[in-house]
Amino acid sequence: MVRISLDVMGGDYGPEVVIPGAARALERHPDIKFVLFGQEARCIELLAKHPKLKASSTFHDCEIAVGMDEKPSQALRRGRGKSSMWKAIDAINADEADVVVSAGNTGALMAMSVFCLRTMQGIQRPAIAAIWPTLKGESIVLDVGATIGADAQQLMDFALMGGAMARALFEVERPSVGLLNVGVEEIKGQEEVKEAGRLIREADVEGIEYYGFVEGDDIGRGTVDVVVTEGFSGNIALKAAEGTARQIAEYLRAAMSRTLLARVGYVFAKGAFDRLREKMDPRKVNGGVFLGLNGIVIKSHGGADAEGFAAAIDVGYDMVKNGLKAKIEADLARYHGAQPSEAVPRA
Amino acid sequence: MVRISLDVMGGDYGPEVVIPGAARALERHPDIKFVLFGQEARCIELLAKHPKLKASSTFHDCEIAVGMDEKPSQALRRGRGKSSMWKAIDAINADEADVVVSAGNTGALMAMSVFCLRTMQGIQRPAIAAIWPTLKGESIVLDVGATIGADAQQLMDFALMGGAMARALFEVERPSVGLLNVGVEEIKGQEEVKEAGRLIREADVEGIEYYGFVEGDDIGRGTVDVVVTEGFSGNIALKAAEGTARQIAEYLRAAMSRTLLARVGYVFAKGAFDRLREKMDPRKVNGGVFLGLNGIVIKSHGGADAEGFAAAIDVGYDMVKNGLKAKIEADLARYHGAQPSEAVPRA
Repeated sequence: MVRISLDVMGGDYGPEVVIPGAARALERHPDIKFVLFGQEARCIELLAKHPKLKASSTFHDCEIAVGMDEKPSQALRRGRGKSSMWKAIDAINADEADVVVSAGNTGALMAMSVFCLRTMQGIQRPAIAAIWPTLKGESIVLDVGATIGADAQQLMDFALMGGAMARALFEVERPSVGLLNVGVEEIKGQEEVKEAGRLIREADVEGIEYYGFVEGDDIGRGTVDVVVTEGFSGNIALKAAEGTARQIAEYLRAAMSRTLLARVGYVFAKGAFDRLREKMDPRKVNGGVFLGLNGIVIKSHGGADAEGFAAAIDVGYDMVKNGLKAKIEADLARYHGAQPSEAVPRA
Repeated sequence: MVRISLDVMGGDYGPEVVIPGAARALERHPDIKFVLFGQEARCIELLAKHPKLKASSTFHDCEIAVGMDEKPSQALRRGRGKSSMWKAIDAINADEADVVVSAGNTGALMAMSVFCLRTMQGIQRPAIAAIWPTLKGESIVLDVGATIGADAQQLMDFALMGGAMARALFEVERPSVGLLNVGVEEIKGQEEVKEAGRLIREADVEGIEYYGFVEGDDIGRGTVDVVVTEGFSGNIALKAAEGTARQIAEYLRAAMSRTLLARVGYVFAKGAFDRLREKMDPRKVNGGVFLGLNGIVIKSHGGADAEGFAAAIDVGYDMVKNGLKAKIEADLARYHGAQPSEAVPRA
């Protein structure tokens, strides 16, 4: 059984997407047990439409829904202890859930997660890891925006956590890890990145294979399983790639509808286009993962539809099934010489 | 007449690409006068094949060709005063050329350009500006990798220089300028970026319209004419976008050849695919522009073919025709209260 808590009010659509999304994920993974946190009045009818989901879940009424444009500090002040977002996260502390999924606003979700779950022993900063489709399959890219800037030690921690996530998700024994940089010329490269390279190489960690520096175009090429960078450039890379994919989809649409011949061709090649659309479907890779906290938090895109939200739940499910948290703790403990966080009293 | 000096030995292919590329550009712009710098033995036969080009150019024999993987310091030591790259740049100082184009290695070209041309009055650091295809047309993104990191004042200078370039290239009177950032939440954003935003807003420069912050996906959307960022994240954004475009082209190729129906559809829609390919053709936007130096330097991709190199020459031609250098100097002078660089003795 995998216990998943959901912030039902999160995202642009709230319960209208989260409840049918959960129902879809349950079809695929009948061993999920959901713990739902939402405003009962907005959820009760929707839930009645999904009797299987209703049967495999417990529902908790919450006073407050965190707004999509609330600032993190405001969300914390208003929603601490009583919002659906906070309570969904806190279900991990109460040992009612193994993972939490929310489509709520990233800043608020991160602030509440840090506040509520605290960072793991030895970790100064959490990271957001994205699952990035590549020519070879999928890679993990972190940090894509949890915090701005990172020193060499923090990049080293990202490498460890990303490596553990790759082992949990991709079933590779020793995932390759690259540090994002801008070429190999002498005048180039941030000091922290160079220093992180030295740290990772010298640590010679069992769970990862250090590849060296990679550049922006190596991400989509799938050169390494895990791409490590600080949050500013990681976020810019992610958004630039998303923007390019949308841009080309737009070009393609325009090209295929301009002439009669193109439209005829489109009809013949429809199957191929459908497969391409599926490959490019952002819903299929929906779900950033917050790493470095005492609990796994999955952030779904705010604008995701039910299928997108279900995909985010799938990611959380896989993480729990494959013991992500224990893997990270073991790696960190080995590297930092610290104890797994369970043994450590919370600050 | 536009006088263009060429580093004939630069790039992965050297004269084999540069000479036919120059010939193509000359077809399009018969008022170009080329000054060619190369190793005569490798160029003489190729040049004989392009009599029109030969007639509109002067050729200077050079001892040394800078290697594509030479470090900047090494290239400077070995090639200063006698390499085709150095001499092509120096032709601007000698007032033999208005712009220089090289497909040589970026680090060496930047180092030599800074050494040979010096930065403009008031400018601490040069920038590399890329011309980025967008859903609305084209935008300018800078810096894409001249230097790592930039303080608020340097970002302000990038905004001014990018604005001048947009006015020279796009024929807009008051181009919109955005600062690349990672969202608007309070915990986010680098200090320098925030401070630069304040500087640009307060300066209220005549030649640009400050838009505010933009995110990575705004670049391809064409939200602003000019996107300003420091070199590390700019380079990552550019390469991530290039990687994504290549990745999708690969998906498309695979999808269109998998089934008979898809192949039939491809035949019908071939015209549309050709147009799409043209839209995505990286050769069409080949050419990074070095800004902030006492002379315009165009960097072509090292792997460009003749059409690609010709496109880089086109960019240089347009810059000269539209008085880019004077526009930048006027803007900088107005902002910094300094004199145009001509009036200032070189250090």
